[in-house]
Parts: sequence; structure tokens; C-alpha cells
Amino acid sequence: MAKRRFCSFSNLRIREVVPVYFTMLAVFMILLVASLQGPSRQQKSSFPYQVPLDPQGSLQLYWNVSYSEKVVYFRILIKDLKFGLIFGMSDRGDFEDADMAVLWTNELGSFFGDAWSDQKGQLHMDSQQDYELLNAQQSQEGLYLLFRRPFATCDPKDYLIEDGTVHLIYALLEKPFSTLSSIDVSAIKNRGLQRVQLLKPDLPIPRLPADVLNMEVRAPQVLIPAKETTYWCHITELPKDFTKHHIVMYEPVITKGHEAIVHHIEVFQCASNYYTIPRYDGPCDSKMKPQSLNSCRHVLAAWAMGAKAFYYPEESGLAFGGPDSSRYLRLEVHYHNPLELKGLRDSSGIRLYYTSTLRRYDAGIMEVGLVYSPVMAIPPGQKDFLLTGYCTDKCTDRALPSNGIRIFASQLHTHLAGRGVSTILVREGKEAEVVNADGHYSPHFQEIRMLKKAVHVLPGDVMVTSCSYNTEDRKNITVGGFSITDEMCVNYVHYYPRTDLELCKSMVDPGYLQKYFHMVNRFNSDDVSTSPNTTVTKQFQEVPWNSFSAGVLKSLYSFAPISMHCNRSSAVRFPGEWEKQPLPQINEKLPSPPATCPAMDPAKSKGPTLVRLLQ
Amino acid sequence: MAKRRFCSFSNLRIREVVPVYFTMLAVFMILLVASLQGPSRQQKSSFPYQVPLDPQGSLQLYWNVSYSEKVVYFRILIKDLKFGLIFGMSDRGDFEDADMAVLWTNELGSFFGDAWSDQKGQLHMDSQQDYELLNAQQSQEGLYLLFRRPFATCDPKDYLIEDGTVHLIYALLEKPFSTLSSIDVSAIKNRGLQRVQLLKPDLPIPRLPADVLNMEVRAPQVLIPAKETTYWCHITELPKDFTKHHIVMYEPVITKGHEAIVHHIEVFQCASNYYTIPRYDGPCDSKMKPQSLNSCRHVLAAWAMGAKAFYYPEESGLAFGGPDSSRYLRLEVHYHNPLELKGLRDSSGIRLYYTSTLRRYDAGIMEVGLVYSPVMAIPPGQKDFLLTGYCTDKCTDRALPSNGIRIFASQLHTHLAGRGVSTILVREGKEAEVVNADGHYSPHFQEIRMLKKAVHVLPGDVMVTSCSYNTEDRKNITVGGFSITDEMCVNYVHYYPRTDLELCKSMVDPGYLQKYFHMVNRFNSDDVSTSPNTTVTKQFQEVPWNSFSAGVLKSLYSFAPISMHCNRSSAVRFPGEWEKQPLPQINEKLPSPPATCPAMDPAKSKGPTLVRLLQ
Repeated sequence: MAKRRFCSFSNLRIREVVPVYFTMLAVFMILLVASLQGPSRQQKSSFPYQVPLDPQGSLQLYWNVSYSEKVVYFRILIKDLKFGLIFGMSDRGDFEDADMAVLWTNELGSFFGDAWSDQKGQLHMDSQQDYELLNAQQSQEGLYLLFRRPFATCDPKDYLIEDGTVHLIYALLEKPFSTLSSIDVSAIKNRGLQRVQLLKPDLPIPRLPADVLNMEVRAPQVLIPAKETTYWCHITELPKDFTKHHIVMYEPVITKGHEAIVHHIEVFQCASNYYTIPRYDGPCDSKMKPQSLNSCRHVLAAWAMGAKAFYYPEESGLAFGGPDSSRYLRLEVHYHNPLELKGLRDSSGIRLYYTSTLRRYDAGIMEVGLVYSPVMAIPPGQKDFLLTGYCTDKCTDRALPSNGIRIFASQLHTHLAGRGVSTILVREGKEAEVVNADGHYSPHFQEIRMLKKAVHVLPGDVMVTSCSYNTEDRKNITVGGFSITDEMCVNYVHYYPRTDLELCKSMVDPGYLQKYFHMVNRFNSDDVSTSPNTTVTKQFQEVPWNSFSAGVLKSLYSFAPISMHCNRSSAVRFPGEWEKQPLPQINEKLPSPPATCPAMDPAKSKGPTLVRLLQ
Repeated sequence: MAKRRFCSFSNLRIREVVPVYFTMLAVFMILLVASLQGPSRQQKSSFPYQVPLDPQGSLQLYWNVSYSEKVVYFRILIKDLKFGLIFGMSDRGDFEDADMAVLWTNELGSFFGDAWSDQKGQLHMDSQQDYELLNAQQSQEGLYLLFRRPFATCDPKDYLIEDGTVHLIYALLEKPFSTLSSIDVSAIKNRGLQRVQLLKPDLPIPRLPADVLNMEVRAPQVLIPAKETTYWCHITELPKDFTKHHIVMYEPVITKGHEAIVHHIEVFQCASNYYTIPRYDGPCDSKMKPQSLNSCRHVLAAWAMGAKAFYYPEESGLAFGGPDSSRYLRLEVHYHNPLELKGLRDSSGIRLYYTSTLRRYDAGIMEVGLVYSPVMAIPPGQKDFLLTGYCTDKCTDRALPSNGIRIFASQLHTHLAGRGVSTILVREGKEAEVVNADGHYSPHFQEIRMLKKAVHVLPGDVMVTSCSYNTEDRKNITVGGFSITDEMCVNYVHYYPRTDLELCKSMVDPGYLQKYFHMVNRFNSDDVSTSPNTTVTKQFQEVPWNSFSAGVLKSLYSFAPISMHCNRSSAVRFPGEWEKQPLPQINEKLPSPPATCPAMDPAKSKGPTLVRLLQ
């Protein structure tokens, strides 16, 4: 009898359930979800954001953010529900130390509760229920679950939803579980993670000009390779005699059914009009790819899964076309195909909206952070090693217009060891504002993100960009550089009006680094062998890495003077003395943001909610 | 009319008040305290702990701890109430960033609320009211306020009550305030701080033997000097032919009326029976004090304000008397007389309870932590510099009995820069247990504290003692040593059975420190002057202190091998190799204790409570 009920549940025919007292719970409140079905604000408002959770796309997440309530509304479509779902968040997408909403089923009915997992992945009911189920409704497509969760709950077991990347986790339960704690997460096959920026900025959509045109830069019926990761490169070109225009908006064009496979798309402009770029259509890492495509690095558009259309502020646009710019564009599409599906033909790409009526300001992109140089390195075995790059007052003073610039968007960038990136604006020795920060940064999820509020940078301001790295799985030094196994620490800031300052980055003074090598080698061994003609990378590789060598390197980076790259677009430095510059002094830190916990609603459930399905 | 009411309030004649809506508060709930007056658990139970808050003793704090509820019950007697009281807790006793319960008065009545102060000392009503008023009762002695507060509230504005020292703050309001936020704390004259251990261990009181005797070691009618700080020394002696006894308990004997002045009392035994110690009765820092009194350093008893009687576990006692120990005792009383009161005669001291029926085990005292040596130093300008001393596996293996020892009490010790002390037991590379830890440690409040649970230390275990220091107000290096401006990092652990191991401490290998001096001097300057015959202290003073020198010293201390002092009572090392020992490896940390927040009581007040006085 009980067995039959399980079976019938998988077809979602249960219409009534019996309230039961669970001794494991101090308080057990039944919340009849049906009673909440009346017209509510959540149901009237739409869900502007959407992302598939799993590679098949059988779990669709829709969400909306209420900044006034400090709450995220989640709506999940489960196309093929069996016995339940785990949906949650964790620091880096693990199922251990995670915060979860769980829908599970036993012979008594279906239950929805707020749970957490410990270091070993064991599930526990949360003493404070902060995922609040609002609706559970069966439809032709599948089961829709509607629930909400405050950004901050002040429950130490809960994940704090912050700006930046959130690692969402999901798992589909394929059998009944009598209790929540009997669920063995490690045994679930159909589980995974998805990265999104949950707290999208709540900005008004800028108006498009009346004469707006659009062009699509799309993959030409590409046969998606049956492998997990493919970066596809496709060269296209602008019409001849295409004059200077402003891109004012762009949006993704995803081939239907490929929403869960197309991971990110970028459109680059090639370096100069003088080169002819050969036509190419194939994997970006192919040996057949012409070398000259490497010059196609000027970003025109970048989209990643979960992102919406990107609008330039009404007063600015990104210039393209005209005699000084290349006609050639490179489309790059990252296909993420872990199920190695075969025979899929894809035409995804980006639709650019542009106008010939130029806006007031050209928008620009500037690099702040660290110079790509091996002098900035991360010792092996580090859990959380920080590197910091500076855009100094001297450089902004030299290069920015007197009215300053306004940064409206930002793309954070590291290679594989990056775990966090932030850029802070410092004015007169005091931290003034966060430009962009992502404490759960992943190198696998690099979006151009609109800032909630444009940041005004004046001549004389300092921008401090810090990246944290994890090298616990590495045995050798990781140096700064271009290879994917080298590291970078960069923030591409999007701003207007465009200036001649292309990059404002720093690195440690190389002479001080030589002092460091001399010191640690002497300390660690009595016979010091210093070969004067070796490279910095080689010198780093010869250091015996231990807590002392690593600690002293950290001390060096936070003390030694820096070499500034304060460069024009032509890759030439602005005039001035840029070597052995003092590290910017920061005398006052930004206060840590107050944790605003919602006032507890006394009527809020203290235990799991019995789910009554609505059909 | 309003004015008269204020005056009448100072005589506490208000019997009725009018409920009013305060627009500043989202919710305003009136809690008629009178209705809570019925016989309750709190009122039946007594308040075992007591301390005066102010030097006059006009504010008496009584408290009790419920470990089952995780709540502290506070009862404050305000002998001369004018317009209210602020009582609270903060990290180090400041009125900024503090957590407060406030009783304030305006023309509408008296109000009690949970508040917090910001960095500038401005008061704000707390959104979550966690100080819960239970009773306010007028009596002949003054007004009694009874309220309670959970250890942890999970409100980020609230102080977390932990084991160890708590800095209590108090301020008496001497005029009415229309609102809480209008209170200017900096303008209040009658305010201060008092340090206590709030979370006293809840241990059953051991039985005293039937043949217990007692003797009092008391000050002989000392005229308390009219100055803020006096350490009074008084020599007394045991009877002739006093055989070996066990001290099983001791308690303070405070002269009536001096409860707020007698800050701490210690009884020391002098070094050996062979010396004759001259009689002395005077300040401990007097030039007239005989040198030989400095040998009186073996602690027999130590009491500090707020502490209760100290009981030895039933199976052990502290040996004194007998042919091998000195007959001479030194009493030390710390008088804290900030009001510089004159003419007070004091006979405070300690009453020792002892027995000639020796218990099974002699108790012992062992020092763990850092060697008193200048090689362990703290750079100037440090906010939070950590020094760590080790009692290594090799030493415990050599010196402890195979059944190990049981530590039942502990006294943490640093000099003036100390801000935190902890000792962790490490077994097989894993942190196993906290021996004693005080994150709000103050060098002005050094008690012998009973442990909540005795810690069993086995041969091969490691004890790691770490101290954090603040030298932000210092311009020069602080080295390890005996002077009050030098530093120490020691935990005196009380244990049984007594062993021959008197101290188990470490310091950095002096050879590695020399490497450090060479390195940082070379790094910081090109002309290196190393005078070979100088002292370590001098070498430290010559280092140019900056973030690099300090950072490298920190790296040195966490990497370089150590020199172990694994010493017998005779101050001779146990046999073995104790130089250039490896730092103990700790592969697994203790998990941070879960913050257990009380389930919110929906009926709990969301705003201040209107106070109805009971007479």
C-alpha cells in the first residue's frame, strides 16, 4: 500500500496528506500552501531571470530579486519529478557545508524544509526555516515550486546571498526517504552545480534610439563536438565602408534546446584595419587556427549563462566601425557538453543593437590590477594567497580628465587558481567605495556585470584590485603570465568618457624581488647558488617552498615598492617616473556591511512544510 | 509639572505610566513587568555570584548562569538611582561598539530596552530585544532590576557571552532623556568598567573532609593608601613543626565595606625552609622591602574580584607544611582605590581550609607557554601579534606518568600588552580540546579559573599556548622578559598527580633569530652593521620596524625550530636533546563552536519595555 503511494507520487496524484507529529522536530507547523495561492505580488510580477540548472535542462530556475524586501523569489520547474529535489547554495558548489531547500517524499506525503549539510555531507533540518514555500503547482510542463529566501538570515548555518557569483547546487531524489537526515547526498547521481549572479542590479532599462539597427554575430550551424568543453571560433566581418557607430545594447541569441549547453559567448574586434584576417570556423585551440586571430582581443560584447541583455548607459555607446578600426570580428562560443551529446547543430551568437546617431560619450574599457608578469607569483599549497595590483593616484592624475570617468560595468578576470576578486576605490587614503567584488568568484564564470551604481573616479584616486588564489593542489610555484596555468588578476572596467588610458596596473619592483630570492635562499640553505642569468620563473622554481619562504614573499608584496604600467592604448607609458613607486597607503578601511537580518515572523514555520499540490 | 515628575522619579514614587506610541519604533510592546512577579524559577534560585560594578559599591551586580537555557540572569541593585542606568558588555570595556541594556526616564515614564552603541558611542535601539526585563522592584536598599540575556543572540549588534573574561560597562544617568538616542554617553561622569568571568563553571561543590581546619592569612589592619593602585605585602608564618597538610579549599575574607576596593589577593609560599624571611608589612614596591621576599613565589592561593571559593577536586589537595617546605608565607593584596579614599583600615585576606588526612594525590602547578626570553618579541605598532609556546610531545613523553595528568584549573598570564591567551591540547597532530582560552583576556584580571571539565593530558600530547598582543601605542620593540613592560605568555595549569615537570615551555632557536637579524638588516639597508657582541634586545631595537620586518618575524616564529625548556622543579632540564626541535605539526584544527541562537520567542518584545515599579 505504501509502495503504491510512492509510485502514485511519482505521477503526482496525491491530493491529500495527513498531518503528522514528527518527534524529531520541536515544533511542527502545517502550512497549507493552497491557502497562499490567491493573487499575490510574487505571482503578478514576472521572473526576469532564468537559467537551466542541469545539462539536460530538465530543471529550470527562474528568479526575481526584491531589494526592498531583501528577498530572492525562486521558481523552479521540475520537468520529471520522481521523489523530490534538493536545491541550495554553497561557498563553491560543494554538497558539503551547504545550505539547502529540500523537497522529499515518504508514505505520509511530501515535505519541504530548510536544511543544511555538515562537513561530511550529512543533512540536518535547520532550526530556523528561511526557505519559505509559497506555492507548489503541477502543470503540463512539470511541477513548479515557488519559494523565497531572504539575502541574509543571521542563521549561522545559512548561506549569505551577496553580490557576485552564487554557486547553486541541485540534486534529484530518485527514491523515497522517510526522513530528511536519511538522504545520502553522495549516492545521488543526478546532481550538480550551476553558477549565477543572483543579485542582478535593479536598473531601469535605458531607452533605445529610434534609429536603432541590429546585426547578429552567430555560429554558422556549428556541429557541437561531443566533448565536455569546446571553445568555438568563428571569423566574420563588418560591411565595407561601415562608418563609426555606437553599440547601445546586445543580447544573446541561443539556439532553441541548447540553453543548457551554450555557456558563454564573446564577440571580439581584431586588432587593426591594416591586417587581413583569414576566414576561420573551428575550435579556438585547433592547430589549424591562423595565428593572426590572436590579435582579435578587443571585447565588443560578452555574455554568460544567466545574463540578460547588456545595455549601455543612455549617454554612451561602444564605438565600432570607421576607418581606424578593424572590420574583422571574432565570435567565441563556449559549449559545455558534459553529457557528450552528438549531432547538435548550433547557431547561437549575439545580437548587437547599434546606431549611427552617435551618443554623447564613447565608452571605453580599461584594465586595472596586476601586470602579466612572473614577478607576481603564488607559492604552492596556499589556501588563500592574496595578490594586489594598484592603479595609483599618480597615474589617474596624469591620465584621467578633470571631471573624471564613470565606471558602469566590470568584468573580473583570473586564471584557474582564482577564488575571489575585488576592486576598491581609494580617495585621499580612505577606502571610499567598492567598484566590484566577488567573494565566490570562479574563473569558469566571467561575466561583464553592470554595477548597481556607477562609480565616479577622479584624477588622484587610487584603485586597488586584489585577487585571492588557491594552490592547495599544486606542487610548484604559479607565476603571473598568459598561460592558463599561470595567473592573472585583472578587472576590465567599462566606463565613459573613453580616455587614452588603456591599462593602469602594477607589479612588485623586480630589484626587491631579487633581494627576496637572495634572502630566502640564504636562510634555507648555507650554500647559496645564485645564477645571475636565470629567469624569474626559474628563480621562483628553485625556492624551497615552506611557510617561511611563502610568508616572506607575502610580506615583500605588501611592503616593496612597485613598478607602474600607466599605459596608453598604443601600449606606451604616459610620461613620468613609474619605477620604484611607493605602495599606496590606505589609512581607513570601508566598514564591513551590516548583516541585516529580517525581523523574524512569528507565524513563520519552525519545521518542514507539508506540501499540498495544486493542479 | 513635567519637572516635578522627574523629581518624584528620583524618589521612585511613580506608580503608573501611560503607554505611548513611539514613532521611532516599528513595534512597541508594553510588557507589564508586574505580571511577571509571581513565583518564578529565577526568583526561587539564588544569585551565587556577586561583584560591585563601581568603586563606591553603589551598584551591585548579582548573577546566575543557566547552562540548560544558555542564559545569564542578572540582578542589579542600584542604591541611588537618579534617572536611569546603562549596563552592558563590550570587547574591552569601551562605551563604543558596546551592547547595552538601558533604563531611562522621561516625562512619560521609565523604559528598559536593548541598545547598542556605534563606533562613535552613539546609542541605537536594537532591532531585536535580547535583554529581557523580568522584574523591577524598589526596596530599602535601592532599586533591584532583574533581567536575563542569552549567551548568544545571533544579532550582529550583540555581544557574544563566552567563557573567559567579560568587560562589563555601567553608567548612571543623572538627568532625564526623552529618547534613548539622545543619551550622550561621553558626557556621563559616573561610568566605568568591571571585569568578571560571567560563565563560571557549574560544578558540584566537593565535600570537605570531617577533620578540616582553617587558618586565615589576612592583612593586619592595613591603612589603605589614598592612591589608585597599591600592592600590599605582608609576611606571616606557619606554626613550628607544622607537618605536611593538604589545602582543600580557600575563600576570600573581605573587610566589610571594602568589597569594591580589594581587587585581588594572593598567598605565596617562600622558596625554602633554610632561609629565614624577615617580617615585613608594607607596599610590595617599597624600597624598604627585603630582597629575600622575592623568593616567595610558590602560589598557595589566588583570588580576584568576582571569584568564589576555590575547591580542590576531592581526590587531591595542595601540599604545604612539612620539613621540605618554607614556613614563611607572603600575602599580597591589590587595593584598587581610584577615588583615593582616606583612612580605611583593611584586614582582608584568604581563609585556607586544610586537612592532615592527606588526599590521594598531591596537586601540582606547571608552567606551559613561552620561555621568559628576549628572543620572543613583538614589533611596535601591532594590533594583534601572536606568539606561541609549545609543550612538546617529546617533553610530555619524558616527564608525564603513563596514566597522564588531569588539569582542573588554569591561570593565564601575560604582562601589559596581552589581549588574548589560549592553550590547546593536541594529540597525534590533531587539536583535541581547549585547555583554557580567553579571547577578552586582560592583564589586569588574572584569576585561577576552574575548568568546566578536567583535561586529561597523556605522555606524547602537545600543549600549544598562544598569546595575542597589542602594541599599537608602542614605538619600540617589546621583548620577552620579567619587567612589566616586557612580555610573557604563560598558562599556570593546576593538575594532579603532581609530577617533577615544573615547566614545559619553548622559544625560537636563537641561531635562526640571528639569521633573521642578518636578513632584515640587509634588506632594509645596504650598509649592514652587525656588532657580534651585542644583546638580542639591542639587536631587536636596531631593526627598522616596518611591515616587512614585522611580517618576516612572524614567518620566522611560525617556521623556525624551537629550543625546549622541559624542566624539573630543580630548574634542571630532563635528560634529552632539547635544542633545534621541530615545531609541532597541527594537521587538524578544532571546529569553531557552533553559534547556537535561541529560537526566537514570538511573544518577545520588539521594542523597549515600559517599567512598572513594584514596591
